[in-house]
Amino acid sequence: MRYNNRARDELRPVKFTVGYCDYPAGSVLVETGRTRVLCNASVEDRLPPHLIGGTGGWVTAEYSMLPAATLTRNRRDISSMKLAPRSAEIQRLIGRALRSVTDLGMLSGMTITVDCDVIQADGGTRTASITGGWLALWLACEKLKKDGVFTVNPVREEIAAVSAGIVNGEVLLDLDYSEDSRAEADFNMVMTAEGRIIELQGTGEERPFSRSELNGLLDLGTKGICELCRSRRAYMKRSL
Amino acid sequence: MRYNNRARDELRPVKFTVGYCDYPAGSVLVETGRTRVLCNASVEDRLPPHLIGGTGGWVTAEYSMLPAATLTRNRRDISSMKLAPRSAEIQRLIGRALRSVTDLGMLSGMTITVDCDVIQADGGTRTASITGGWLALWLACEKLKKDGVFTVNPVREEIAAVSAGIVNGEVLLDLDYSEDSRAEADFNMVMTAEGRIIELQGTGEERPFSRSELNGLLDLGTKGICELCRSRRAYMKRSL
Amino acid sequence: MRYNNRARDELRPVKFTVGYCDYPAGSVLVETGRTRVLCNASVEDRLPPHLIGGTGGWVTAEYSMLPAATLTRNRRDISSMKLAPRSAEIQRLIGRALRSVTDLGMLSGMTITVDCDVIQADGGTRTASITGGWLALWLACEKLKKDGVFTVNPVREEIAAVSAGIVNGEVLLDLDYSEDSRAEADFNMVMTAEGRIIELQGTGEERPFSRSELNGLLDLGTKGICELCRSRRAYMKRSL
Amino acid sequence: MRYNNRARDELRPVKFTVGYCDYPAGSVLVETGRTRVLCNASVEDRLPPHLIGGTGGWVTAEYSMLPAATLTRNRRDISSMKLAPRSAEIQRLIGRALRSVTDLGMLSGMTITVDCDVIQADGGTRTASITGGWLALWLACEKLKKDGVFTVNPVREEIAAVSAGIVNGEVLLDLDYSEDSRAEADFNMVMTAEGRIIELQGTGEERPFSRSELNGLLDLGTKGICELCRSRRAYMKRSL
Amino acid sequence: MRYNNRARDELRPVKFTVGYCDYPAGSVLVETGRTRVLCNASVEDRLPPHLIGGTGGWVTAEYSMLPAATLTRNRRDISSMKLAPRSAEIQRLIGRALRSVTDLGMLSGMTITVDCDVIQADGGTRTASITGGWLALWLACEKLKKDGVFTVNPVREEIAAVSAGIVNGEVLLDLDYSEDSRAEADFNMVMTAEGRIIELQGTGEERPFSRSELNGLLDLGTKGICELCRSRRAYMKRSL
Amino acid sequence: MRYNNRARDELRPVKFTVGYCDYPAGSVLVETGRTRVLCNASVEDRLPPHLIGGTGGWVTAEYSMLPAATLTRNRRDISSMKLAPRSAEIQRLIGRALRSVTDLGMLSGMTITVDCDVIQADGGTRTASITGGWLALWLACEKLKKDGVFTVNPVREEIAAVSAGIVNGEVLLDLDYSEDSRAEADFNMVMTAEGRIIELQGTGEERPFSRSELNGLLDLGTKGICELCRSRRAYMKRSL
Repeated sequence: MRYNNRARDELRPVKFTVGYCDYPAGSVLVETGRTRVLCNASVEDRLPPHLIGGTGGWVTAEYSMLPAATLTRNRRDISSMKLAPRSAEIQRLIGRALRSVTDLGMLSGMTITVDCDVIQADGGTRTASITGGWLALWLACEKLKKDGVFTVNPVREEIAAVSAGIVNGEVLLDLDYSEDSRAEADFNMVMTAEGRIIELQGTGEERPFSRSELNGLLDLGTKGICELCRSRRAYMKRSL
Repeated sequence: MRYNNRARDELRPVKFTVGYCDYPAGSVLVETGRTRVLCNASVEDRLPPHLIGGTGGWVTAEYSMLPAATLTRNRRDISSMKLAPRSAEIQRLIGRALRSVTDLGMLSGMTITVDCDVIQADGGTRTASITGGWLALWLACEKLKKDGVFTVNPVREEIAAVSAGIVNGEVLLDLDYSEDSRAEADFNMVMTAEGRIIELQGTGEERPFSRSELNGLLDLGTKGICELCRSRRAYMKRSL
Repeated sequence: MRYNNRARDELRPVKFTVGYCDYPAGSVLVETGRTRVLCNASVEDRLPPHLIGGTGGWVTAEYSMLPAATLTRNRRDISSMKLAPRSAEIQRLIGRALRSVTDLGMLSGMTITVDCDVIQADGGTRTASITGGWLALWLACEKLKKDGVFTVNPVREEIAAVSAGIVNGEVLLDLDYSEDSRAEADFNMVMTAEGRIIELQGTGEERPFSRSELNGLLDLGTKGICELCRSRRAYMKRSL
Repeated sequence: MRYNNRARDELRPVKFTVGYCDYPAGSVLVETGRTRVLCNASVEDRLPPHLIGGTGGWVTAEYSMLPAATLTRNRRDISSMKLAPRSAEIQRLIGRALRSVTDLGMLSGMTITVDCDVIQADGGTRTASITGGWLALWLACEKLKKDGVFTVNPVREEIAAVSAGIVNGEVLLDLDYSEDSRAEADFNMVMTAEGRIIELQGTGEERPFSRSELNGLLDLGTKGICELCRSRRAYMKRSL
Repeated sequence: MRYNNRARDELRPVKFTVGYCDYPAGSVLVETGRTRVLCNASVEDRLPPHLIGGTGGWVTAEYSMLPAATLTRNRRDISSMKLAPRSAEIQRLIGRALRSVTDLGMLSGMTITVDCDVIQADGGTRTASITGGWLALWLACEKLKKDGVFTVNPVREEIAAVSAGIVNGEVLLDLDYSEDSRAEADFNMVMTAEGRIIELQGTGEERPFSRSELNGLLDLGTKGICELCRSRRAYMKRSL
Repeated sequence: MRYNNRARDELRPVKFTVGYCDYPAGSVLVETGRTRVLCNASVEDRLPPHLIGGTGGWVTAEYSMLPAATLTRNRRDISSMKLAPRSAEIQRLIGRALRSVTDLGMLSGMTITVDCDVIQADGGTRTASITGGWLALWLACEKLKKDGVFTVNPVREEIAAVSAGIVNGEVLLDLDYSEDSRAEADFNMVMTAEGRIIELQGTGEERPFSRSELNGLLDLGTKGICELCRSRRAYMKRSL
């Protein structure tokens, strides 16, 4: 039995608070179950060194957990003087996913940074960051559109992300922390609303898994991402 | 005229959300005007190196701003590989203030870390951190008391903090960012509910100021701190 | 046409030099096409902090590129004072994969570090590191077995890794750098010799890809990994 | 009884060695009791990043202790790879105080750095740094004046700093280390020669203190700063 | 008796593999006994800050050991977040030696970095780095010459380096690790092929040594360097 | 002509101020011409990691320049977050030289750190650090002897250091900065009072130099070191 009698293929309740912060161009607090991530998209008139002199722009992400977001307090990166490797990996994933559906050529001279700060972590923070971060990015671009920077939003396609995993031999959608920590295999998926694949990352943490198990995980993920996009669209309409 | 017709000696509306996060022993989101600081108090069974072998415990604070908390995005400390000196200074102040009213001898073997993460900054983040952080610390100690660690709360006295400043020659209580950035002098005060002084930090940023101006600032601060303690007490009662 | 008339589903020539270095317990220079990675497994009588006090051991990996390994010189991590995020991500992948097939309980009190230093990079360095690193780890454990530390090798299963990708709409096995840099999608796979999945990481770099394209990539990868294990087994027999 | 029968409101003997070093534009060794701080003001033709493109200049300070300056050796910042937070706080204070009386607009394109290196620490190093650093800065500007950079010295006003504190219930001026370490409250004051306030920093380290105690501390500080300015003026005249 | 019956004044077998790596302009694997150093010279169109605006170029070196190069694994610099002081010292020595015989004025706007990565360390890695690094630098300049950048090679003179030491009172040429660790005195010499001195570094590690012992060490070093240059010249001819 | 008509083989005036600082066990301000180095020897009851568990003790050195010690201000190490490689090299040299004449076995469980802080640099700071640091170390051990820690001073032998160089073809003793910056070759020597060699470091900065030039440099150095030891002995006697 899952917490709250959740079905095998059921997402946790998801909620988007648009405009949570006043200053960034796009701001979304995304909550999925007890997991809460604040996604803020800030626009700056500067380029990363490797793009200076070119004609396009850039989208990047930063991911960090508040110290008290987890069951036992985790130290700040600055205390150990290095970005946690796990955070480095996750923020590369978020940035890659967001760039893959953005027309960077339209962002000439601008960098949009999507900060994903985890307020509370109960599993699925990286996928929530992508699902919420996409909305923050889209909102920031809508704002630039209203300001006349461009006439169509350069975020060309909707994407979302979700996890699935094998727990006690069963394939489950959207693992919470207690499930994730017991999972035999763990899969994170980023897809478009139509289920085309942007990124897959899966690990057999306790044992190797089979092609047919993989297919079960992908089926669940496709269903979950489709539902996430649908429920997110309601928030998008309201904010237009 | 101040924003929202605020009077010279009037605080911004203040609100405490107790239990904002689920995991830390004490958790408070404090909001004062548009300034929002999340204060989480975590208890750990470890001591800082300089106390190992002794009989008491420790209280410390960490202060940090989210990148999108300010009008223009500010870089994370880890990007520049050093704790911002301003943050270092502020977290030393918060820790000192909280320790000054805590019976550290009762916290034997424990460290309580009060994390003050600024979600949105519109002036007064350091004083909000002290006012909210005190409540988070008190709540964490109440929890330890319920768990039987001690029979009286080791936080012996109520303290709060507020700023006051001189803007266009006028003495104002509780500066917001637009006032703070134009202030001729800026004063941060930490006091007990009865107006006894814990810490004063004041700067004549644009010009030296006089003893009588100082007295005006102190009078305002005493009034503000007294009001903050009174309104905070309502939240304390509810959470018992 | 691929370089050297390589077929779509053909690996680059692969070569293992066992015992390349004299001091580490297991040492392998793995070469696949022009890519060369030196994999050294060192045994130390110490544990990482999170395992101290427990009964098992640990396997970890470090990955680094020599500055002159790439077409244009890349700076050392120490120059920029941070581990390259890409390296952090890769060494986490290698360590996870190696641990997934090792009986850590048998390595009581020991840490085996598998250093993967890229001498020359022409695509596929992370997969070569896993394929070669597995052999270095196995050799180090054989040596411990000969020294009487245990009677069976704690590395329970053979694994290897390979990449596949979509280039100009065609699915190709084992991309070299010139292919990788033009790939629409890029997939890294770690599997057992029987094709059961340990880890998958795939990205649609230029465009989303479909489930049927994914299946094509997985079929190629399974074939490649099976061949890599077979050819590596010859080197294992010789070194017994 | 204080060391050397010093009265409650008496400064320690103070001495300024002007021109202690040959290379910097302004160089002063300030000694107050056993506390010795070397203050050197160096002029450079560069601006900090946030001023580039503007018309003015900048004054900044760096504060550091020699390892053997204290009773037990203190480690260098570079050993722990971070600027001691206490030093960060102090150098911000020194810089702020010196800038508050300098016409930065006259220093166009120049940065003057006032290095305050503590040779020996017996309490009051931060206030000695301000009192001595002001003189080093003024001397550097006199030199620039002689070189024809400007016709009046841009340091518009004399400032000095001193500490006062409450020890065993008694209000004392200019604490040495043995007094400071026992103080119930500790106050650092920066004022003009006429007693107008530049900066106040006070802490009730052992207990809160009252407004009337505060007034006692301020009276002592005003007296001390006035005397420091008077005795420093003699050294200024000699060096013209 | 020395290992392999080596005579007091006999070098270990030395071997140069020219073109070991494909990408850098000059690439040499130098082996002397069991010591193996990979020397790669990379040409970049940039200058270090202190030369920008000038007319010449720069030659610099970086020295690093692979973790498994030594009998017991050594940690990477990035783990401890600082360049090992020994490495810093050695790379300064290599760079100084190479610059002393290069006409930097001819390298206008270019920096040549000679990376010396120690694959295996059995004593004499710094001298092998100079002897091999000189060849890598010369090859890189030959390549630039072929590319028409200049008509004569700017490396004006041949240099090589070797160690000598006093072990059990006996003066020995080219110490291996087991000799070096027992040496009473240890001497590193860099000379031209004709025995003129570029750099000397000698330490009486166990006891002071005399002028006549020094002369014995210098005689051995001169002989060794002369032989190293002679044997290296064969590899130079072949690569023309 | 040298500054002040100094002869080719003449030292600059040298002066030792014993007891310059009050807290460290041994404290010496050494001045040679305009070069001034403060050498403080501090005794601590701790051992470096590699000696813990052994029976002896340790002597080490740290070397640093004040920012205003040089003609143009040099940045603090902490600003660039790394120990200047030149300083790292010099402090290794000082530590090695001091250890070579100290009976470390007598310092059981203690570390003596000799801090060499350059107040003003006019050439020869590393040799002055050794000459002055030796005295600080000897004084600290005399103090321990008085405290009954041992009955003979563990510093067994007198050493000192000096530079010599070739300027305009002429061999000169004890170069000042203006000579050093024009030197064709530069030699630093550490010897016992009897001229036996502890350490030699010499570089042909502008051109290779010959064996006979080397002999000229060594003759000058031997003479200089002998004189330094003699004049230092006067200060030692006075401080007994």
